[in-house]
Amino acid sequence: MASIGIDLGGTKILAVLADNGEVLDKHKLSTPTNEGPEGILDAMTAAAVEVDPDGIASGIGVGVPGPVVPGSGVLPLACNLSGWTSPVDVAGELSARFDQRPVFVDNDCNVATLAEHRLGAGRGVDNLVGVFMGTGVGAGLILDGELRRGPRGIAGEFGHTIVDFTAKNRSTASNVGLGELEDYAGRSALERRARTLHTQGESSALIALAGEGQMKSKLWKRALDDGDRVASRLIDQAAEALSSALASVVNLIDIEMVVLGGGMAERLGPEFRDDVAARLATRVFAENVVPIRSASTGDSSGALGAALLVEEGQM
Amino acid sequence: MASIGIDLGGTKILAVLADNGEVLDKHKLSTPTNEGPEGILDAMTAAAVEVDPDGIASGIGVGVPGPVVPGSGVLPLACNLSGWTSPVDVAGELSARFDQRPVFVDNDCNVATLAEHRLGAGRGVDNLVGVFMGTGVGAGLILDGELRRGPRGIAGEFGHTIVDFTAKNRSTASNVGLGELEDYAGRSALERRARTLHTQGESSALIALAGEGQMKSKLWKRALDDGDRVASRLIDQAAEALSSALASVVNLIDIEMVVLGGGMAERLGPEFRDDVAARLATRVFAENVVPIRSASTGDSSGALGAALLVEEGQM
Repeated sequence: MASIGIDLGGTKILAVLADNGEVLDKHKLSTPTNEGPEGILDAMTAAAVEVDPDGIASGIGVGVPGPVVPGSGVLPLACNLSGWTSPVDVAGELSARFDQRPVFVDNDCNVATLAEHRLGAGRGVDNLVGVFMGTGVGAGLILDGELRRGPRGIAGEFGHTIVDFTAKNRSTASNVGLGELEDYAGRSALERRARTLHTQGESSALIALAGEGQMKSKLWKRALDDGDRVASRLIDQAAEALSSALASVVNLIDIEMVVLGGGMAERLGPEFRDDVAARLATRVFAENVVPIRSASTGDSSGALGAALLVEEGQM
Repeated sequence: MASIGIDLGGTKILAVLADNGEVLDKHKLSTPTNEGPEGILDAMTAAAVEVDPDGIASGIGVGVPGPVVPGSGVLPLACNLSGWTSPVDVAGELSARFDQRPVFVDNDCNVATLAEHRLGAGRGVDNLVGVFMGTGVGAGLILDGELRRGPRGIAGEFGHTIVDFTAKNRSTASNVGLGELEDYAGRSALERRARTLHTQGESSALIALAGEGQMKSKLWKRALDDGDRVASRLIDQAAEALSSALASVVNLIDIEMVVLGGGMAERLGPEFRDDVAARLATRVFAENVVPIRSASTGDSSGALGAALLVEEGQM
């Protein structure tokens, strides 16, 4: 039976109509930035209607950029959604807009990990972590074949892993504590570090490539390919921090595989992935080496995973 | 129905006869250090017979100092058991000595955590980590009310959490990587650090207190109480590293409580525990503060937890 999956991101909303893991139709919209949650709910509704004009879907799944208390359907807060500063009952609001059809809401990294486990690189592996390295760093966990959400829905906040406990002050520029993984491996933090090095006199092609704009993932790839020293050093540090945090995950919860996705990881490609894997192998306890595979469900992973929530009747 | 629980440690073997969480009898022996696994199995057998001379126990549970593949009953390797350098089928060997009664074998920190969850400080809390700070640092995880062992049985190797990813060389003096939690918060590592500081000219009462012997937990407590600067600085660093690693655990798997035990933590007492809790509160993501409680099942926690394996028919 068909279901709608919606991936709600800070810049775009992607809706798919999916059936048994297959995308039948998809539609993308920009996320409204000046109408608050109401405008975002309207945009999600519009995208959903676009992929399912005849209303054949049995329900709607939504992946949202923040932790969700399991079963609540509520997104309490979303730093990267404009005006989303207090809890909104996403499930209730969307259900009301769709003839009371069931709506399931979960964290975006959770649903992307679910998609990778059920349909992608993690198929057949029942203990894995899905890591998404983009603007920030997020993750989802599959333990014994099921998503680990945790009682408060915060499981998978892997970007907040403390990889350097001596860097204990919190950054005033972001929600990220210094010494946390995201502070070394997220695209935002990498850009901040590159610009800081630049103002300290270390020239880098990244600055000219970015110009007035954001230092996007493809610019990092280009600078790396050109042998830019600042880019090399910072990506090297990112690989070191990521492999350390992953080693701690392997040691703590005994996973069998890492699935690596997200815009930055995709752009850096197999070379980066294999570099992280090689470092990870030297850092895990005893001989407990685990492989890293590239995420394979692509841009639709979040929306597809959200649709899976409906099929599996979860949350 | 009564069962036997055995806690196999590097220096002592403790056997209990337990019924429904109550210790009916206990017996302690020194762990043989020059007879290999065979001598250790004999000593475990002797301790078990001592608490259950009439053979009323329905089965035997054993907590061992190393990871155990779930269901295998085999301890592959134990660094702190003399001569235990290749896999031994503990379950098979003990069962053969006890009329083929069922034997269940699990990691010592796992069974101690099980005891704390079922009978101790963690009762009623279904997502928690039990942390044991002694010679090294170990842990066990309860997720959704059950022990998390993992497919290879390595879950809970919390001492190997990397808290400083910039310290990447492995120590030649131990099995512990530099930059791992145990390298800051385990008693062995703390002693090594204190002695290094001493040879570098920083005087500390710890050196005189220890004399030719080990720098035991109670010496650390005494030096701290006397305002010893080296002891204060190193324990401060241990608290910082431990709180950081715990914050990463909270952020990754969403636990609701930390139960803190082990010889060193017990000796350092509520002051240390509350210090770690206060630091943890500043380090967790968002408002996800979790309490730290002192382990309450005492010296018998491992043996009692091992007996629980029998009662619950696990592994």
